[in-house]
Amino acid sequence: MYPEQEILYKIFARQKLFLFMNTEKNKEYLQRYISEITPVSEEFLNEIENRLNHLTKPIGSLGFLEDSVKKLGLIQRTTSPKIEKKRVYTFAGDHGIAQENVSAYPATVTPQMVLNFLNGGAAINVLADQFNVEMQVIDVGVNHDFTEASELIHKKVANGTGNILREPAMTREQAIQSLFVGIELAQKAKDDEVDLLIAGEMGIGNTTISSAVTATICQRPIEEVTGIGTGISDEKLEYKIDILKQVLESRRPNREDPLDILTQVGGFELGAIAGLALGCAYHKIPLISDGFISTTGVALGYLLNPVVRNILFPVECTSEIGNKHLLHLLDLPASLSLNVRLGEGTGAVLLIPMLEAALNLYNNMATFESAGVDNHE
Amino acid sequence: MYPEQEILYKIFARQKLFLFMNTEKNKEYLQRYISEITPVSEEFLNEIENRLNHLTKPIGSLGFLEDSVKKLGLIQRTTSPKIEKKRVYTFAGDHGIAQENVSAYPATVTPQMVLNFLNGGAAINVLADQFNVEMQVIDVGVNHDFTEASELIHKKVANGTGNILREPAMTREQAIQSLFVGIELAQKAKDDEVDLLIAGEMGIGNTTISSAVTATICQRPIEEVTGIGTGISDEKLEYKIDILKQVLESRRPNREDPLDILTQVGGFELGAIAGLALGCAYHKIPLISDGFISTTGVALGYLLNPVVRNILFPVECTSEIGNKHLLHLLDLPASLSLNVRLGEGTGAVLLIPMLEAALNLYNNMATFESAGVDNHE
Repeated sequence: MYPEQEILYKIFARQKLFLFMNTEKNKEYLQRYISEITPVSEEFLNEIENRLNHLTKPIGSLGFLEDSVKKLGLIQRTTSPKIEKKRVYTFAGDHGIAQENVSAYPATVTPQMVLNFLNGGAAINVLADQFNVEMQVIDVGVNHDFTEASELIHKKVANGTGNILREPAMTREQAIQSLFVGIELAQKAKDDEVDLLIAGEMGIGNTTISSAVTATICQRPIEEVTGIGTGISDEKLEYKIDILKQVLESRRPNREDPLDILTQVGGFELGAIAGLALGCAYHKIPLISDGFISTTGVALGYLLNPVVRNILFPVECTSEIGNKHLLHLLDLPASLSLNVRLGEGTGAVLLIPMLEAALNLYNNMATFESAGVDNHE
Repeated sequence: MYPEQEILYKIFARQKLFLFMNTEKNKEYLQRYISEITPVSEEFLNEIENRLNHLTKPIGSLGFLEDSVKKLGLIQRTTSPKIEKKRVYTFAGDHGIAQENVSAYPATVTPQMVLNFLNGGAAINVLADQFNVEMQVIDVGVNHDFTEASELIHKKVANGTGNILREPAMTREQAIQSLFVGIELAQKAKDDEVDLLIAGEMGIGNTTISSAVTATICQRPIEEVTGIGTGISDEKLEYKIDILKQVLESRRPNREDPLDILTQVGGFELGAIAGLALGCAYHKIPLISDGFISTTGVALGYLLNPVVRNILFPVECTSEIGNKHLLHLLDLPASLSLNVRLGEGTGAVLLIPMLEAALNLYNNMATFESAGVDNHE
């Protein structure tokens, strides 16, 4: 980062300033930020591969684990990647579309679950504890006043999005603002020397909007990218698909313009996750995306700058059918098949012991030479 | 176990005695042991499900993790399953078929890797350390004199199997003897109050024999169950398939008789793993099978008593194509997709943090009531 950029970033980071800026200026800043993202470095790849190939195991036999060591090395630009300090950001937002009764749960559950996160009672809390991950919860657009919640990161763009069956989800300015929430939190992670980030989310109605976004960016019929979310009946799934067809006909998001997709059918947590992905690409912080919703947000970031793909570890432990189309778009493999469809960052946290295992193997296994084992014929 | 059985077991457990027993007697003991395996109990299933359904998450949204809590509860016959004490048994054996040059590595690697296990330098050592798993290595048939290795569990049935291209792998007596190695080690785990076992293996040539066994028990053409093993070329894979076709034509293992399959085309480590699976079913110890080879052994145990399926957690993080047919036979889902094809127990150990996560969530999440979150409409 050269000095001018540094100053630009300081401006971005002061979230509140954006409210007073005009859209054109913000858009210009965003475009400059995105254009400054550099590719990952292949500088140390040969050295890492060479070490992996001398360990006492058949070449390549650790599969995803070996690929992960290489990818972490590329991202962190080192032959000694590490993931000591880990953080999950769980972004919460509400969705006007929840008024259409598309979820198995009422919209009141979004703020209630935010409080559950803060009190340590949710699934993500238990898993973050187990796997030594710091958890931070961000209100990026919940329809609730959390003024008293001091542990919460307050970045509310608005009290929920518009009901996309009748109106756009947000203004273009709000879409940009939500991206900057994620960009700012990536910078915060960089400042705190976090080695690995996880993108989690919470928001009643957000599988519905993720289906609308995924149908658009993957150019698939809505039926192919719409699942049961929190667990709706077959009948309600048909209804959800029907609502989504109407949504896409009314909103007509422009596939070539990720900001328009966010504006028409997005969510504040999707925007924040897209921004986080861009920030991770900018700062070269490895990012694990969670299930369908989180990966939808990351995919929006990917469309803004493809380097996102190179810092990303997606986890496909979900039964949400849209996710496989996103992985196809990102051209990245699935790594778990646990059929978890909870969100919050839970699926992504489960990948951490696998990445830690990868690095432990890389750092601690004997070589053919040191163990006196005959190598490949 | 009633007294007579107890006595029978004590006899089984003294491995050396078998060498002096006649086949008919041993077979009778084995049949009695197998017939005494009781089903798992569904007694506490409703209570476990009820608790899972009150936790602050959509019903069933933890997928495999919820299924695992239920399965552990069924096996351990409790509403509070635990997996505190974990052990991996890595069974090593040699294979006459390795003379036909079917592997990427020479047969000398089997004893060298056994020493690498004992010295802590192999992949399984690193992972067992990370995930707090006790590791024990068993010589069940390596073509090497390990007399001096005091950390090794000495259960050698013979110095490797016969070359199945020209002769049976072993005698029927040896097949039974290898089963008793596993049965005995399951009893040892029970005595040591181990909560969870893992079946690992090492043996140059053992993907080849596993393909022969799997083709037989899954009734699939050999091409559909034969993979690259430690990493052979396409050309060598064709050669391996050709060798295996000749093997199956000469040996003609009887699908209805798992002992004949072991005798004709098996391996001592496969027999031991089949026995371990039977012992785990007998003592109700949850068992994680590793990749293709380990699951082949377990499947032989399953054919001897189907309760094996109910205590088993298979891990399909392998590119060995035969594994999916075994999972189909066992009618159990895959849980990881890490493309690990190393063996030793490595894939299975990677499932441990997932099972621990499942129990942590079950034990520590808030309920809808305690967290004040609105439940399903």
